[in-house]
Amino acid sequence: MRIESVDIFYLAMPRIADIGDGSQGMALVRVRAGGISGWGECEASPLPTIAALVTPPSHSACHGVLDSVLGARLDEPADIGALAGLVAERGLDLLQTAHAWSGVEIALWDLLGKARSVPAWELLGQSASRPKLPYASQLFGDDPHQTWLHAREVAAAGYRAAKFGWGPYGRGSVAEDADQVTAARDGLGPEATLLVDAGTVWGEDVDAAAARLPALAAADVLWLEEPFTSGALDAYARLADRSGRVRLAAGEGAHNAQIARHLIDHGRVGFLQVDTGRVGGIGPAAQLARYARSKGVDFVNHTFTSQLALAASLTPYAEAPDGVLCEYPVAPSPLAVALTPVRLLGGDGLVRLPEGPGLGIEPDTAALAPYLKQVDIVVDGRTLYSTPELSR
Amino acid sequence: MRIESVDIFYLAMPRIADIGDGSQGMALVRVRAGGISGWGECEASPLPTIAALVTPPSHSACHGVLDSVLGARLDEPADIGALAGLVAERGLDLLQTAHAWSGVEIALWDLLGKARSVPAWELLGQSASRPKLPYASQLFGDDPHQTWLHAREVAAAGYRAAKFGWGPYGRGSVAEDADQVTAARDGLGPEATLLVDAGTVWGEDVDAAAARLPALAAADVLWLEEPFTSGALDAYARLADRSGRVRLAAGEGAHNAQIARHLIDHGRVGFLQVDTGRVGGIGPAAQLARYARSKGVDFVNHTFTSQLALAASLTPYAEAPDGVLCEYPVAPSPLAVALTPVRLLGGDGLVRLPEGPGLGIEPDTAALAPYLKQVDIVVDGRTLYSTPELSR
Repeated sequence: MRIESVDIFYLAMPRIADIGDGSQGMALVRVRAGGISGWGECEASPLPTIAALVTPPSHSACHGVLDSVLGARLDEPADIGALAGLVAERGLDLLQTAHAWSGVEIALWDLLGKARSVPAWELLGQSASRPKLPYASQLFGDDPHQTWLHAREVAAAGYRAAKFGWGPYGRGSVAEDADQVTAARDGLGPEATLLVDAGTVWGEDVDAAAARLPALAAADVLWLEEPFTSGALDAYARLADRSGRVRLAAGEGAHNAQIARHLIDHGRVGFLQVDTGRVGGIGPAAQLARYARSKGVDFVNHTFTSQLALAASLTPYAEAPDGVLCEYPVAPSPLAVALTPVRLLGGDGLVRLPEGPGLGIEPDTAALAPYLKQVDIVVDGRTLYSTPELSR
Repeated sequence: MRIESVDIFYLAMPRIADIGDGSQGMALVRVRAGGISGWGECEASPLPTIAALVTPPSHSACHGVLDSVLGARLDEPADIGALAGLVAERGLDLLQTAHAWSGVEIALWDLLGKARSVPAWELLGQSASRPKLPYASQLFGDDPHQTWLHAREVAAAGYRAAKFGWGPYGRGSVAEDADQVTAARDGLGPEATLLVDAGTVWGEDVDAAAARLPALAAADVLWLEEPFTSGALDAYARLADRSGRVRLAAGEGAHNAQIARHLIDHGRVGFLQVDTGRVGGIGPAAQLARYARSKGVDFVNHTFTSQLALAASLTPYAEAPDGVLCEYPVAPSPLAVALTPVRLLGGDGLVRLPEGPGLGIEPDTAALAPYLKQVDIVVDGRTLYSTPELSR
C-alpha cells in the first residue's frame, strides 16, 4: 500500500476551562491507504499540529510531516520505523513534528493491523494481551472535602487504585497539600493504591518537593508523579535519593525516546509513563517498555483523554503481566466520551484491549460533529489545509 | 509599558532548495509597546510558529503564546524572565511554544533596550561588549574540489577560522569524508582554525562518528559539531571519551536551558552552541554562557541566518574575552541579506555588536516585501491570524 491521505481534525469542547483537563481538546488523525482508514490521536495542541503537518519546507531539516508521509510505502511494521526516521531527520528543526507524527504513527499501526486483520499489539511481536488494573485518574478537588468526595466515588465505583493530581496541589502550603493527600487516602480506604501527580508544579525546586514527602509516605502513596518538568533530570535524581518508599514517576512530557530514557538513566524514576500520542507513537513506546523492564523500572501508560488514546497507550505493553497498573481517564469530557462507544473497562474492574484488528476501536464520526472545528490555513492565496469531511 | 501587539512574519525565498541552508525561510517577530517596536527572529518553521502564537487554548497547560504575552507588563529585565516562566507553564503541552517564545523574548530585549536607550547586552548586567573572531560558516561542497575552492575563498576574504558542515559529509565512506576534511584544511592553509559540522548525521552511532576522528585530528580540527542529535547524551559522552584533541560541540537543537545543560553535564561537550532563536531567547542563553564558563566549557553562538539573529546570539556572551569565536553566516540567502543593511563584520576581520540601543539593528521592512508570505488562519470562520502590514 501507499499512504494516500493524512488529515488531522481539530476537536474541542464548546468552552475550554482553564484547568488541567487535557480531554477538552483533541487532534484526531485519519490516515488512508488501500481503501482502509487508520485512526490515531496526538496528545497535542491541534492547530500548531495541523500547521506542522502541512507547512511548506524552510530547508532540508525543516519539512512538514506530510512531505515525508504522503505516498510512502506501508506494507509491514518495519515501514513505520523507517518512516519515523525519515520524518525525524526531515523535521529536525520543526519542534512540533514530534507531536504531529505521534498521532500519525498510531494511525499507521491501526491501518496496518486492519489490512492484515491482526491487532496492533500482535504486529509488535507480543505474545499476548493481558488485562491491566486501572487507576482512576482525576484532578484534586478545590479543597480536601471535595477530594474526599471524589475518592469515595471512585472507591464506590469499584476502582482499586486512584490518582489525584493538578488543581491546588503544590500551590499552597505543605500543610494544605498534606490535607489533600490525607483526604484522598481517607476517601479511598486503606487498601487501595494511591498515586499523586504534582503536574510539574515545583519547576526544579527539590526542597519544595521533598517537603511533601512525609505526608505522601504517611498516606502510603506509591508514586509521586511529575514533581518537575521532564527535562529536570538532576532534580529528579536528587529527589529520588530522598524519596524512600515513595517512588518517582514521570515521562508524559517526553516527545522522543531519548528524553524518556534519560528519566531512567539520569533521573532515576521508578515508573516511566509515556504518552504514545507524544513520544513518537506506539513503536518508540514499545521499545521504552522493554528498556524500562531491563532497568527494573515499571512502565505505565499516560492517558487522560479518549478510549482511542487509551488503546494506543496500552498496546506497547500489552504483554505485561496481569494486574499491572494502567491510567484510566475516569472523568473524560463529553467530547472524549463521544469519540467511541467502546469502553475498555470491563465489569470485573480490569481494562482490556479490544479484540479487533489494529487498535480495535472506530471513532463514532457522527457523534463528533458538534465538536469539529473548521480550520482553513491559506498562504499567499493557496489553501494548505481546509478541514475535510470527518467520516471513515 | 504593557505589550500591545505581537506579530510573526513568515518570510521565504521564492524557491526553497532541499539543502541545509537555514536562511531560506524566516519567522520574524515584531512586538509593540509604548510606541516602540522590538524585533526578534525565531530559528523555526514559520507557519507552525505562527499557529503556536495564536492558537486558542486546549487546557490550562496548552495556551498559545499570545494568551500570556498580550497586555503583560514590560518595565525591567526581570519582567522578561517572569513572562518566560508564565509562557513555559501555560505552554507546557504545546511543543512549538519554545521556538515561538524565543523570537518574542528577543524582541522584548530589543524593545526594552530601546525604551531605556541602552544596548541589550548592558541590560543583562554585562560590563562590556568585546569583539569576536568570526568563523565563516558554510556547507561542504558537493565534492572535495568544491570544498577546497570554498575554503580558498574564505581564506582570501580574510577569515582566520572556518566551519564546513552538512552536504555530503557523513553520508559517504570514511575515506570520502576524510578527503572533504583534507580539502578544507588545504584550502584554508595551516594557520586557520578549522571546524567540522556533521549535522546529526550519525544518529546515535558512536562507532560511525569515531571512525572519522583520525582524519579530523590529522587536519587539526578544533571541534566536531553535532555528530548526534542534541538528545543523544550517552553517545556524546562515549564519543568524548575517544575524541582526544578534537572536542565535541553541540547545542543548536536545544529548545530550553535544561537540554543545553545536559549536553555539558551528561554529554561532556567542549563547546556549547545554543541559538537564542530556539533556546528560549537571550535570557536563558546568557545564563548558559555563565554556566558553561563555570564548567570549563566554551560558549559559542549558533547563527546561520541574518545579522539580526547574529546580534541576538552575540548579546548573551558580549563580555567574553576579545577574540573568542563566533559563528558568522558567510553565504546567507538574499532574504537574510535583505533583512538589514547593517553588517557586524568590521574591516579588521572582527565582529562587533552595534552600539545602538536594544539589539542595535532595525529590519529594512521595505526590502523584505518580496519575501513576505500572506498567512491567513481561520477557525470556524474566525480569523485568528492575518499577516499585518510589515512596517516599523
